[in-house]
Amino acid sequence: MSEAYRELRVELGDRGYPILVGKGLLGNCDLSPYVSGSTVMIVTNDIVAPLYLEMVRNSFPGCRLNEVILPDGEAFKNWETLNRIFDALLEQRHSRKTTLVALGGGVVGDMAGFAAACYQRGVDFIQIPTTLLAQVDSSVGGKTGINHPLGKNMIGAFHQPRCVLIDTDTLQTLPRREISAGLAEVIKYGLIREPDFLAWLEDSMSRLTGLDADALTEAIYRSCACKAEVVAQDEREGGLRAILNLGHTFGHAIETHAGYGNWLHGEAVGAGMMMAADLSNRLGLITDEDRRRVESILTSAGLPTSVPAGMTPDHFMNLMAVDKKNVDGQLRLILLRGLGEAEVTDRFSPDALADTLATFCH
Amino acid sequence: MSEAYRELRVELGDRGYPILVGKGLLGNCDLSPYVSGSTVMIVTNDIVAPLYLEMVRNSFPGCRLNEVILPDGEAFKNWETLNRIFDALLEQRHSRKTTLVALGGGVVGDMAGFAAACYQRGVDFIQIPTTLLAQVDSSVGGKTGINHPLGKNMIGAFHQPRCVLIDTDTLQTLPRREISAGLAEVIKYGLIREPDFLAWLEDSMSRLTGLDADALTEAIYRSCACKAEVVAQDEREGGLRAILNLGHTFGHAIETHAGYGNWLHGEAVGAGMMMAADLSNRLGLITDEDRRRVESILTSAGLPTSVPAGMTPDHFMNLMAVDKKNVDGQLRLILLRGLGEAEVTDRFSPDALADTLATFCH
Repeated sequence: MSEAYRELRVELGDRGYPILVGKGLLGNCDLSPYVSGSTVMIVTNDIVAPLYLEMVRNSFPGCRLNEVILPDGEAFKNWETLNRIFDALLEQRHSRKTTLVALGGGVVGDMAGFAAACYQRGVDFIQIPTTLLAQVDSSVGGKTGINHPLGKNMIGAFHQPRCVLIDTDTLQTLPRREISAGLAEVIKYGLIREPDFLAWLEDSMSRLTGLDADALTEAIYRSCACKAEVVAQDEREGGLRAILNLGHTFGHAIETHAGYGNWLHGEAVGAGMMMAADLSNRLGLITDEDRRRVESILTSAGLPTSVPAGMTPDHFMNLMAVDKKNVDGQLRLILLRGLGEAEVTDRFSPDALADTLATFCH
Repeated sequence: MSEAYRELRVELGDRGYPILVGKGLLGNCDLSPYVSGSTVMIVTNDIVAPLYLEMVRNSFPGCRLNEVILPDGEAFKNWETLNRIFDALLEQRHSRKTTLVALGGGVVGDMAGFAAACYQRGVDFIQIPTTLLAQVDSSVGGKTGINHPLGKNMIGAFHQPRCVLIDTDTLQTLPRREISAGLAEVIKYGLIREPDFLAWLEDSMSRLTGLDADALTEAIYRSCACKAEVVAQDEREGGLRAILNLGHTFGHAIETHAGYGNWLHGEAVGAGMMMAADLSNRLGLITDEDRRRVESILTSAGLPTSVPAGMTPDHFMNLMAVDKKNVDGQLRLILLRGLGEAEVTDRFSPDALADTLATFCH
């Protein structure tokens, strides 16, 4: 194992697991202690495989290894691609003692995790996220799933991994646009729960966009710690966990409207957080200065703060009507109460929401 | 609620639920207390809908009701059909507070249950099984799933219902062949755990095949009670629960070979239990007389005790190699130790298994 890494734990009783964060972990660690049987199926994609597959294969000494290489991209986060994982598992006769390894970004993690949740009614899996977005968000907390033509992540399961291994070196090969998309979720943790972290991010943004390894480790560690705390309190999103969706209701509408993959998830969340901040400001929950701070940090992270050209308030209202947080047809949103605190609510003035939508859809 | 019914409870802590068994329950009960939101999606098939859908609609006063009617049969227990449930839920904008109701046999129950497990990462569901097989087996215990071309029930989830409602009147419209198929699972409970119940079944078989309501209620109640006890001890089949698979390893091979739906599940399990009894006898675990008792009760229930013509030992060995109970490639079987006791084991002479297969594949 690499000497310099940080470790934290998601506290979920017998489903608890460690998250390891550091530079140079891949290729220097033995993950076989997290494998309960003797077989492993590595799930990755055609972009990541040439870069890291061989390193990961060496992390499971003594195991029978197979792999399935999926096409890259959100457009493939569907049943047909998922079924390629099941085909591979059955063709190679993997039993329910097998372990799946998700090596890649959020799409690979969500699909490999959902395949693990469903294969023979549930097998183990390990997350090795290689994008910043997956490292700070989707690889932690056990949400897995695929998209449906009528909505994102509509089909899925809660299924916790056995461990999460995060190597900051993988970010060196990541397109700049994806670094920014990941930073959207990092900023989110500051906005919803961690005012000190938010201030640190405002100070450290140029080191982060410059891929400074120590700054990245710190940002990822603190993001994962924040998410782990929330998930430990509310694994299945009965309440608190919903605050992790700040900006996501607007963001999902943007992603669906733009067509999966045209806007990156983090970009849509960035614009969505700007809309949530605007609405919070109109409702008197945050000051004008707070609203400007949100816009400033999003911009410094290279994120959009406006919506796709041509999108109308009706587009938003129709797409947000199928959001998973809604209860019996009532739209629910995450709003800010100052910077560093958030709440889930269906109590907001429809006029204020209409004003926010009209302002962004000019 | 009907006056004469019996109730038992599956003890699974906060996932525990009641099973109601009786004559004339459908159309005489209010199931809305088991609905946590205000919307219900009834999942049924084109055979059952004309018979019972209207009665069931009346069981949810005050709820917004939709329905999705699937084609009947095991051949449709696949992703394409499952997706029709997701389509209906999303088109009708059901939120994650919705409740699915499975009205039909095991195929409908498995698919509606799996849809409930996956829709928005999990919603409530209620089982209203209308076949004997579903009433005594698949509706109880939370196993849900669909088939894959390479194996039965290979994709699924453990997801417990909120309640199970069993009306013995629905058996009056069931083809005789399906009554026999259901009796295979009833006999199974006697063989694996309940010697007194087995003796009662030997005495009562003509009343059961004659659809006597009191005898059916007793057989269903005792079957569900036996299954509930086993499931409460081992919800996710880490150990004990596997004994419920007596005859199923051979049986699944028969079903897959014959093509889904050509042999009914219970028929295949009947033949499979005969094979398990034969192997147990060869291994000295049960007497010749015990073996004859098994053959006799299966025959009196109208079940096959031989395998499909043309099936070879190689067919069995290849199909059994993908069984979910196997660990790291080692075949595991349920064997009898006397009548009324069973064990899961991978310790048996391969020669004895070969002899059993050769005898049945003559």
